[in-house]
Amino acid sequence: MADTLRIVLSDSKKEKPQANALGFGKYFTDHMFVMDYVIDKGWYDPRIIPFQNISLHPAAKVFHYGQTIFEGLKAYRTSDNRTLLFRPRKNLERLNLSNQRLCIPPVDETMVLEALKELIKIDEEWIPASEGTSLYIRPFVIATEPDLGVSPSTQYKLMIILSPVGAYYAEGVHPVKIYVENQYVRAVRGGTGAAKTAGNYASGLAAQEVAGGKGYAQVLWLDGVENKYVEEVGSMNVFFKINGEVVTPALNGSILNGVTRDSVIQLLKHLNVPVVERSISIDEVQSAYDNGVLEEAFGTGTAAVISPIGELNWRDRQMVINDGRIGEVAQQLYDQLTGIQTGRLDDPFGWTVEVK
Amino acid sequence: MADTLRIVLSDSKKEKPQANALGFGKYFTDHMFVMDYVIDKGWYDPRIIPFQNISLHPAAKVFHYGQTIFEGLKAYRTSDNRTLLFRPRKNLERLNLSNQRLCIPPVDETMVLEALKELIKIDEEWIPASEGTSLYIRPFVIATEPDLGVSPSTQYKLMIILSPVGAYYAEGVHPVKIYVENQYVRAVRGGTGAAKTAGNYASGLAAQEVAGGKGYAQVLWLDGVENKYVEEVGSMNVFFKINGEVVTPALNGSILNGVTRDSVIQLLKHLNVPVVERSISIDEVQSAYDNGVLEEAFGTGTAAVISPIGELNWRDRQMVINDGRIGEVAQQLYDQLTGIQTGRLDDPFGWTVEVK
Repeated sequence: MADTLRIVLSDSKKEKPQANALGFGKYFTDHMFVMDYVIDKGWYDPRIIPFQNISLHPAAKVFHYGQTIFEGLKAYRTSDNRTLLFRPRKNLERLNLSNQRLCIPPVDETMVLEALKELIKIDEEWIPASEGTSLYIRPFVIATEPDLGVSPSTQYKLMIILSPVGAYYAEGVHPVKIYVENQYVRAVRGGTGAAKTAGNYASGLAAQEVAGGKGYAQVLWLDGVENKYVEEVGSMNVFFKINGEVVTPALNGSILNGVTRDSVIQLLKHLNVPVVERSISIDEVQSAYDNGVLEEAFGTGTAAVISPIGELNWRDRQMVINDGRIGEVAQQLYDQLTGIQTGRLDDPFGWTVEVK
Repeated sequence: MADTLRIVLSDSKKEKPQANALGFGKYFTDHMFVMDYVIDKGWYDPRIIPFQNISLHPAAKVFHYGQTIFEGLKAYRTSDNRTLLFRPRKNLERLNLSNQRLCIPPVDETMVLEALKELIKIDEEWIPASEGTSLYIRPFVIATEPDLGVSPSTQYKLMIILSPVGAYYAEGVHPVKIYVENQYVRAVRGGTGAAKTAGNYASGLAAQEVAGGKGYAQVLWLDGVENKYVEEVGSMNVFFKINGEVVTPALNGSILNGVTRDSVIQLLKHLNVPVVERSISIDEVQSAYDNGVLEEAFGTGTAAVISPIGELNWRDRQMVINDGRIGEVAQQLYDQLTGIQTGRLDDPFGWTVEVK
């Protein structure tokens, strides 16, 4: 880890896509960060190099045994042309927690953050400026040892790639229809649900396909043990406003400890909105709906920030929430969070980190 | 799929390792099979090419969302120098079942089997001949679309690589010590446990590390719901002989449908040994032990064929099975199965397929 950052700049620059054609994770900048690990040397040769393909042995363990983790965070361009990162330390702390669950050696968070800042400075002109756009940052670690034994790899690669992403809501924040999943399971206590690792997402694809076929945007995941308690929505954390109080499932080992989730909880407290982390069953959500006190529901995550839920379908019963419109609290959270992230509003929490 | 198999032979041949240095999955032959998929074209360009690295975009979905599956089977050299595959159709059927769970498009099993035979013929001299050795065959599919959206890939690569592997038991079949896991969970009903996909293996690494640190070779997995019913041992299916009857956990959706498991069940019936597939709790195993009727325990899988369990540790209680020696039934199954696989014994089941 004593290695200094090596920088090799690209000879040419790619053409940048139009802001309205960005989408999510389809375009990548001119450079990327790479660092290697071998067991007797530790992490070595941190470098920023031209964006390029990776060449791997077909027996690299990541292909066979899924030993891999990732993170997702964003850089924003402010109206006065500064670059802000949102709580990057939290993502790097979680990266190391995911590493631990997957038997991957930890990285030096300070060093990786400095390298990330350097990478962003080099590709700064890729950060889009229009309303709702940002630069999505994807750090990930893959096991590269060419060996078919089922055991932790002795070789790894950490990479950071950058993708300019469009406004998640092209026409204002738009509530989505959600299908409560009661066949497939995303994660279970004792499993990898709390880690940001590939297998959790692979597992969810089939359920998403089924829900999509029925006209739903995402699924709401219930717990793997009793198939009863609410866990996450799609790849986001989930919140319900019931009779004036905001409830979100407590971190129980199978739920991701979302950075946006944590920020929303802090923001609600700051706004004096009652908020509680506890287990909440789908029956309780249904009763609240039946009693007319299910006031709002929304997902939280880096990509969408706040994703209001306009309708829940559980066992073919429809619950239309807040007449299918975004709720007051969800709108307020969205405005406040994106305001802080883009430097439009004050940041009383010290969440943003400027890249200079 | 109408494409004919294209063959590009390697200019040079690698040096072959000594039979006693083979190990498992460390050496690879001179060629590999590759076939690509894009959504508007289907699977195309099946080809046998020199063994080489794969070049992938850093955003290829396999690295981020684990959309990948694999298979494992073996080719054996007979004493009269023929090459036998063991039940390859079963593996290709399961490959397509795994594909289905992971939202990967199915492959033409007949076509892939023919390509596999061709590949083995080309690299035939890599099949080791000494007692207990074989050529391990690893087909696998990876999602290659460069896109960070969480959705099924529109591009895939199917590959088959071959690895000469050593005798699993260097000094005769050797019983192992197994730790009954009660913290980590491998899989849960509704999850991906029945598919042969990377995430299941990634999830098990941490438990294996803990058990290894305590001196145990593998863990015995309990179910994810009640943490009570026996599921698998390491990456093998598991069997118990209790009071003259052989019991193995029934296929419940979170257990892999092992080809060796199926072969063992058929073989036991053929040998007139009572065998039953049903759920079996760890308490029942413990009671059987306490009552002196836990006669044998063993794992089954392609790598080891039969792996006898000499000791189980559950909540710090040791159960030493059959004085830590291999049981009579396990020995008989091992002899019969390896006899059929290598052509030393008659094959009344029609399991072996000759590669000519």
